[in-house]
Amino acid sequence: MSEWKLNNYISVDCVVFGFDFEQLKVLLVDRVLKDEKTGNELFSDLTLTGNHIYEHESLEDAAARILFDLTGLENIYLKQFAAFCDPDRLKRPNDQAWLRASGRDPNSRIISVGYYSLLATKNVTLKWKGRNVKWYPVSEIKDLAFDHYNILQSALVALRRELLYEPIGFELLPEKFTLSQLQKVYEVILGVNLDKRNFRKKVARMKYLIPLDEKQKGVAHKPARLYMFSREVYEKTRKEVLDFNI
Amino acid sequence: MSEWKLNNYISVDCVVFGFDFEQLKVLLVDRVLKDEKTGNELFSDLTLTGNHIYEHESLEDAAARILFDLTGLENIYLKQFAAFCDPDRLKRPNDQAWLRASGRDPNSRIISVGYYSLLATKNVTLKWKGRNVKWYPVSEIKDLAFDHYNILQSALVALRRELLYEPIGFELLPEKFTLSQLQKVYEVILGVNLDKRNFRKKVARMKYLIPLDEKQKGVAHKPARLYMFSREVYEKTRKEVLDFNI
Repeated sequence: MSEWKLNNYISVDCVVFGFDFEQLKVLLVDRVLKDEKTGNELFSDLTLTGNHIYEHESLEDAAARILFDLTGLENIYLKQFAAFCDPDRLKRPNDQAWLRASGRDPNSRIISVGYYSLLATKNVTLKWKGRNVKWYPVSEIKDLAFDHYNILQSALVALRRELLYEPIGFELLPEKFTLSQLQKVYEVILGVNLDKRNFRKKVARMKYLIPLDEKQKGVAHKPARLYMFSREVYEKTRKEVLDFNI
Repeated sequence: MSEWKLNNYISVDCVVFGFDFEQLKVLLVDRVLKDEKTGNELFSDLTLTGNHIYEHESLEDAAARILFDLTGLENIYLKQFAAFCDPDRLKRPNDQAWLRASGRDPNSRIISVGYYSLLATKNVTLKWKGRNVKWYPVSEIKDLAFDHYNILQSALVALRRELLYEPIGFELLPEKFTLSQLQKVYEVILGVNLDKRNFRKKVARMKYLIPLDEKQKGVAHKPARLYMFSREVYEKTRKEVLDFNI
């Protein structure tokens, strides 16, 4: 069926960030090239999760398809953040060998459009085309195949910016959460330690953060008050939020 | 020279916004298709300014080249905001006819990466490949060729967001300016009227906006105080600005 033909020059790379209250992680896949004759491993490294688009498919649909193949989850928040097309993005020796071995023209120009996503790692079961896909701490990644290290860094900047201006952090929390949990979301994603008193002063201004008449249960320490995020209040006060920054 | 071969499937579209203290404008080009035999005009519409990339060229270089060809200006602020690749983005009858007439495969998939730029219209002299390129008020544009109306709307959202979070408005002002001029920048780009008192309260918080011991000269009304923008102070207080939004 010609509809299911992959486009050779347009791909999508998904930077799937994972949050576990300790570290910010990212989904990476093993790329192992073996010698065709001897079967010996020539090299092994890591890539982001991505794929070429199908001829009939939009970029968004391709990104959603990759994420569904990886996690079995649908309707996941995915955000396009940049397109990558440097003339030398596929020119390192490993990348050239990989392209040749998989029957592709190593000199062709391929544009990749980056999407990032943010998940709580505990909600996700991974599987992907029989390949080895795992969570890696972002802070420990020093290089990746192709230009994927560059794509990852660019996604990280975009994610942090988004977190500062949009209420995306709440997607990582249970429906009812404590302010300490909320602070941890900001600390882990921004990669900083925040002063507790300043943080509480700032969140006190978030009208969409609703204090509940409920406290934590079953904790060893003094139970903290629970809060909820109201998207309705957020949407209504949004204009004001934007206005505030002028 | 093979280096100067255009890539057939990757293009860049520049949304060049122009500001003149009255309206937000955008640069558009006439697209006129004539019947090959009779010379009669088949249709005439408008497109953004764009081009395919050269095989050796990065996306950024292609966007800068287009802007230089248009205005003769170098080192213009250009920001990538999104990639456009819907399967039906070139499928309307006029677009199909245009592609066929210019010898291109009307069924090929072309991805376009959007860049926007913001200029004071009075600084710009236009010229482009002998084609008719002009400033049009953004508010009066109802449709464009290809998916360019969609690209324009997406650029407008990105520009407004950028204006709220980054000091890009100052690029449009003279070195020394009044608060009324600054307010006009925000009003024209955001497409809103701002309350003068509220606006002044907000700008009073911008530490990088430096009041000078100088007033306007040669104006009929009471001369207003002049201000300057300090990029140095902005960079130093930037962390704080971001922090403020948490």
